[in-house]
Amino acid sequence: MIQLVLIRHGQSVWNQENRFTGWTDVDLSANGLQEARQAGQILKQNGFLFDAAYTSVLKRAIRTLWLVLDEMDLMWIPVHKTWMLNERHYGALQGLNKAETTAQYGEEQVHLWRRSVDVRPPLLARDDPRYEGNDPRYTGVPAPLAENLADTEQRALVCWNESIAPALRAGRKIIISAHGNTLRALVRYLDQLPSDGVADLNIPTGLPLVYELDDMLQPIRHYYLGVDGELAERTVPDRISP
Amino acid sequence: MIQLVLIRHGQSVWNQENRFTGWTDVDLSANGLQEARQAGQILKQNGFLFDAAYTSVLKRAIRTLWLVLDEMDLMWIPVHKTWMLNERHYGALQGLNKAETTAQYGEEQVHLWRRSVDVRPPLLARDDPRYEGNDPRYTGVPAPLAENLADTEQRALVCWNESIAPALRAGRKIIISAHGNTLRALVRYLDQLPSDGVADLNIPTGLPLVYELDDMLQPIRHYYLGVDGELAERTVPDRISP
Repeated sequence: MIQLVLIRHGQSVWNQENRFTGWTDVDLSANGLQEARQAGQILKQNGFLFDAAYTSVLKRAIRTLWLVLDEMDLMWIPVHKTWMLNERHYGALQGLNKAETTAQYGEEQVHLWRRSVDVRPPLLARDDPRYEGNDPRYTGVPAPLAENLADTEQRALVCWNESIAPALRAGRKIIISAHGNTLRALVRYLDQLPSDGVADLNIPTGLPLVYELDDMLQPIRHYYLGVDGELAERTVPDRISP
Repeated sequence: MIQLVLIRHGQSVWNQENRFTGWTDVDLSANGLQEARQAGQILKQNGFLFDAAYTSVLKRAIRTLWLVLDEMDLMWIPVHKTWMLNERHYGALQGLNKAETTAQYGEEQVHLWRRSVDVRPPLLARDDPRYEGNDPRYTGVPAPLAENLADTEQRALVCWNESIAPALRAGRKIIISAHGNTLRALVRYLDQLPSDGVADLNIPTGLPLVYELDDMLQPIRHYYLGVDGELAERTVPDRISP
């Protein structure tokens, strides 16, 4: 039996402020730090071990991973960081307050930007200070102007197919610390859900999601690892209304 | 001009307690945490940037690196962890107090164990709980029973030649967070010092040591980056007497 643990980063400062984040490199909130430490403690108490970790190049996911590995006394394992696990790029919405954006554009439009598979949010201009084209972190990467969910899923699955799946098949025990939309993409792929089948799947922050897979990487079962009640508490949908 | 930064981990709990550490995975002391953060701040203030980092699989070096990268807003760069940059393995001395050991074996013997190139300290027994042969961290690694300085230098230079030097030649800006003896090995190699030429070279904890190298990786100059007076303060030799 092959085991994989997914974890969505703990609450970030902009989760807390209800802003569109995307590739903006905001840090964890105090609450998010606590969620990450707790996740590490729960994994340790339940006897989990990892041989390698994957994460994005965004600090909210990296710090979540660092705190988990620190609590588990696994700081020494290899950590692979890739932009392909970054959150969905939210284009010109990045930094905007979700409730204010909804007041301006209407609930239906915002829902479409957020959850439709093929609609992209408004594009960034290339001279926008938020554009990552000149960021050394993304050297050699086609910095997006905005992504729809299909764009995000596609690159997350490249990372899965080229790096993570081969490591799992080679017997490595893996943890992936990433973001709502990239984890949703992996879950949709693993569970073979239709492309619109995950619109309402909100993965809670900082709770380890354990997948048990067979030799063909088909899921046998999956479950969250957490204290009773925490799952419900952390799956409250984002507020798009004030 | 190729630039390389070496940093010895901040003070560890056992540095503070004056114990032989070697591969024992002790953490930084409160002082060491502070040294590491400060090193990151100084590097940032001086405009340093890195494309990649190398460290050992011991948490005092990894945590030092994490704190440096955090302060520099470079958490996203690739970090390569290898046992070849671990501190020298101190065999059966690991965990013993340096002053007590000196009282028992005499100053001359302890100095020989610590600074002679080819004398190994007393070997660990394979059934000693300190033996790393069954530690998953060292799977596939010939876990030592004790190392002399030549053993340590040899493996550190394998890492240098196979990984670090090619990355430097490819134009990567590199930071190495490691340990007294592995950094001393690299310094001896870079500066082409005789094998007994570094016995008195104590690299201070947590102060960035900058090497500027030419295209052949020959040193042009090197210097410590630190607040005035800190260099002297942190190069006090270890106490082998009470």
